[in-house]
Parts: sequence; C-alpha cells; structure tokens
Amino acid sequence: MGKSMGDHVLSQDDINKLMVDKAKTGKKVVRLKGGDPYVFGRGSEEALFIKENGLEFETLPGLTSGIVCLNTAGIPASHRNMATSISFITGHRSENQNEDFKKYAKLPGTLVFYMGLKNLPNIIKDLIAGGIKKDKKIAIISNGSSPKQKVYTSTVEKVLEEIDLEKIKRPAIIVVSDTVGLREYLNYFENKNFGKKIALTRDYESTIKDKEKLEDLGFDVKIVPTIKILEKNTDLLEEKFKDFSYDYLVFTSKNAVKIFFDKLIENHDIRDIGKVKIAAIGEKPKRNRKI
Amino acid sequence: MGKSMGDHVLSQDDINKLMVDKAKTGKKVVRLKGGDPYVFGRGSEEALFIKENGLEFETLPGLTSGIVCLNTAGIPASHRNMATSISFITGHRSENQNEDFKKYAKLPGTLVFYMGLKNLPNIIKDLIAGGIKKDKKIAIISNGSSPKQKVYTSTVEKVLEEIDLEKIKRPAIIVVSDTVGLREYLNYFENKNFGKKIALTRDYESTIKDKEKLEDLGFDVKIVPTIKILEKNTDLLEEKFKDFSYDYLVFTSKNAVKIFFDKLIENHDIRDIGKVKIAAIGEKPKRNRKI
Repeated sequence: MGKSMGDHVLSQDDINKLMVDKAKTGKKVVRLKGGDPYVFGRGSEEALFIKENGLEFETLPGLTSGIVCLNTAGIPASHRNMATSISFITGHRSENQNEDFKKYAKLPGTLVFYMGLKNLPNIIKDLIAGGIKKDKKIAIISNGSSPKQKVYTSTVEKVLEEIDLEKIKRPAIIVVSDTVGLREYLNYFENKNFGKKIALTRDYESTIKDKEKLEDLGFDVKIVPTIKILEKNTDLLEEKFKDFSYDYLVFTSKNAVKIFFDKLIENHDIRDIGKVKIAAIGEKPKRNRKI
Repeated sequence: MGKSMGDHVLSQDDINKLMVDKAKTGKKVVRLKGGDPYVFGRGSEEALFIKENGLEFETLPGLTSGIVCLNTAGIPASHRNMATSISFITGHRSENQNEDFKKYAKLPGTLVFYMGLKNLPNIIKDLIAGGIKKDKKIAIISNGSSPKQKVYTSTVEKVLEEIDLEKIKRPAIIVVSDTVGLREYLNYFENKNFGKKIALTRDYESTIKDKEKLEDLGFDVKIVPTIKILEKNTDLLEEKFKDFSYDYLVFTSKNAVKIFFDKLIENHDIRDIGKVKIAAIGEKPKRNRKI
C-alpha cells in the first residue's frame, strides 16, 4: 500500500483505516514506505493506530535518504575531528516552530534537513541567528542516489544568492557540514556516464541484464521494446513430445531453447526426449540451458 | 576484511595499508563493516586513504544501529509533536570535548548516543547543565536487534541511580527522547519466546530451515549436529549409471534422493536413467526432487 493508489491520493487517516480494515478481514497487510518508517515516515502513528485497534504489527528498518543520499553525494555523515554527530531534521515547520533551527547552529556535527527546500531562507536565517560559522559548507542534493542526482554546493552565508532554489528538482535534501568539502575526493557515484541516457530496443527479457550492467556503469537506461518474442507451433511440439523419435535436435536461438524446454517440462520430463543428440548454433543458446 | 582477523586485531593504519596493498595486486577488495560506513564507521578516512593512493572505491550505505536498534526496541526515532529531529552522537569524547553534550540538551528531538555507556555520567551531567527537561525519558538498548536484546528505561534525572551500568552487556546504545514512552505500545520484537534457547541436533543442512523458522518466532537457536550424513557406495552407483537397466527406483530418505541425483548429474544426465519408474516413501523424499 502506498500514498497514491491509481489516480487517488489517500490521506493519512484513509491509509490508517484501510490498513486496519484489510487486516480485520484476516489478511496480512504490507505497508510499503520509502526510507525508514520511523524517520519522519509517520510509521509510529500508523503502528499506534494498529495497536489501538487490537492488531499486531512488525516494522522493518530501512535506509533513510539522509544516509543514502549523503553516501552517493560523497559527503560523509561523520568524520573524525570534523563532524562527531549527525542530525536529521524536518525542514518544514509551522511558523512558531521555526526558531528551533537556532538550536542546531552550534552542534559539532552534520545537519541534514529533510523537506526543507521551500523553508531554506528561514533555516539559514535561524542558523545564522544561532551563531553558525558563516563559511560552513552546505550542499543541496536533488534526486539523490538516482542517475538524475545533482548536487549544489555553497556556504551558509552565500547559498541563497549563489543557488537558484526555484530550479532545483525535488525530492531534495539539504546538508550543512564541513564534510561537504570531502565530496571533492569521495564522489564515486557521479561518473563519466552520469546523466547519459540509453534506450534498449529488444524485448524486456533479453535486455534486462544489459540494463543492469549499463546502470552499474552510471547510464540512465530505459527498455523500449520494438520486438516481441511469441511462441509458435507449440501444439505441434506437444504432439511430437508424445512420441519423440528424432536423432538430432538443433537450436538456432536462445529463445527457442527456452520455449522448447519450458514446453517440455509442462507436461513431460526430459527423459521423454530420450537419447537425442542436441546441437546449438552460437554461444547464447548453449549457455541458456548448459547443454 | 574486518578488524579482527584470526587472533589478531588490526589497527586502523594496518587495515588501510592492507586494503591498498591487496588492491594494488589487481584484486577487488571488499571492506565489510557493521552499520553504515559513514556513521562513525571511519569509512571516510578509509576512502580518502584509497583515493590518496590513486585507487577507486565505491561505498554502499548500511543500516546503522541508531536506526535498527530503536526499531526493535519499539522507540520511534521521530514522532509528530514529540520528536522532530534525530541526532546520532558519539558518546565517547576526549575530556575537553565533553562540554559539547550541553549543546544537544534543548533540541526538540531524539538523541542517540553511540559508544556512550562508559561516559554516561558525563553525558547526563552535561545534558542537565545544558538545561534538558529532567524527566526526559532515557533508554539503554543492550545487544539491540538480537535475541539477546535487553532494554533498560528511566529518566535523565534518575538513570544513574536506577540502573547499574556495570551490569549492562555491550554493545549498547543510549536513547534520550520522549518517544521512549511509546515503547510500551510499539515493542513488537521482544515476544514471549524471547531469550529462550533451543539446540537442534541434526546435521546442519537438514535443520537450517527449522533454525530460521524458530528464529522468526523469537527463539535463540543453535545447531549442534550429533549426526553426520555420509555418502556410501557411490562407486557402485557410478558403475550402475553407465548401463542403467532397472525398472523401479525406490527412495526411502531425502538424503538418498540428494546424493543419487547429485552423483548422477556429475558425469551423466537424467536421460541416462531412461524410463525407470521412480517411487518415494514419505513426504520429504518426494518434495526433495519434485518427483
């Protein structure tokens, strides 16, 4: 279950009610969330609601964006003699809560603001009022950990004039830390292929592995199938299986190998094709069934 | 690679050097760490050392104990109107750094101290000097997320008199947060089987699945094999495979099924046993090869 189901966006109350209603019919309900359920995920509210309704739950910890996006941006959350604590802070606040940000100004560690882009002018104002070092480094990580990741860096004093916040794509998190300077050395993620797009035009099944390999190299890959593999003559094949009397079986494509054996084991077993000699043309058909 | 290899414990310098030396021989080196490499893991120091030596690296984010152990202790890291930030703080400090803790006293969120058990008296003293609410709740999570997890709760004011720190087993993390109070409702992890130990006496392979099932139920399970499955007469089997002329093949144990077919596919293929009729006694042998 997620916040948006089809075209509808459910309110938190709707989600709570839906979870409990489904669970009460005897179903196991999985509430899938991005990040960690207890880090600004409202997971604790949902868990309490479940308990109040006499039901049981389990929670699984997850990787929150403050951990993941700093990693892929090459900004260590902690570093000896540079950052001895890490604070995750909700960046959107009601008006009267804004002054809270002052309290973080003098911590000897890394500050990570979630959902703070719109409120950044207030955050900066309060951090400065709280006495933060004005040349403290700041980074805004947009689309972190995805091939669209973009990292903007500046200082607390200059960020509002140097970076046009309107242009930054969301989701984005904000990092205030001396460790932002280490990004220069630790940015392993944004390599030379970053931001380059590749379309693969074969069928999904044939290209999914290529997609993964290319993504590992940093490309932004989409599968846009322009062909489709269809089964043909499988009735005839089934007929032949019943009394298989060939001496040689020659495969010319890996798709044929897959279809042949998938079909065979549907109603038969490999012994039904007896002692036929099997040949394959090319490397791929061979690999496909370790012939 | 880990900090302790065999009986020896490597220093950080030794680890750095070992990684780089091995990598320079052309090997890919995996540095495996508990938690997240950038959360007090010295991962950034290691990565910088690798870079300085002209080598490349990648880092993978991980689940840090501040996330995992709070989850299994039923203490939400954040909760609306109760904790709007989460700070991970190294609890061991050199003498002159101790006063840092004062700065965390008035944050409107959850404080998680790593490696702070020994230094807890100083942490408490500084938090109180910094103006923390004295009835703020505190939890010490020992062996978090394991079947040996034990959680001690108190308040900032009373923790040092109420809890005997000497008795707490490490590793332990300390949580200072109003959300500690929610543990009463959200503790799903420490169930009725918690702390109960079970020994399984069959061979490892036969019991590993039972072990996992029992662990899911909360038991502390060890496999202590008192029997061992050995192959016998496999030369004879190999002889028979060469000219297999039986009409029936009857299996009486799942181990026999495994050994028979493992041996068969070593040098032959299932077609070599031709159209023999296969029978199995009991449910397990059948399941073992989907006969």
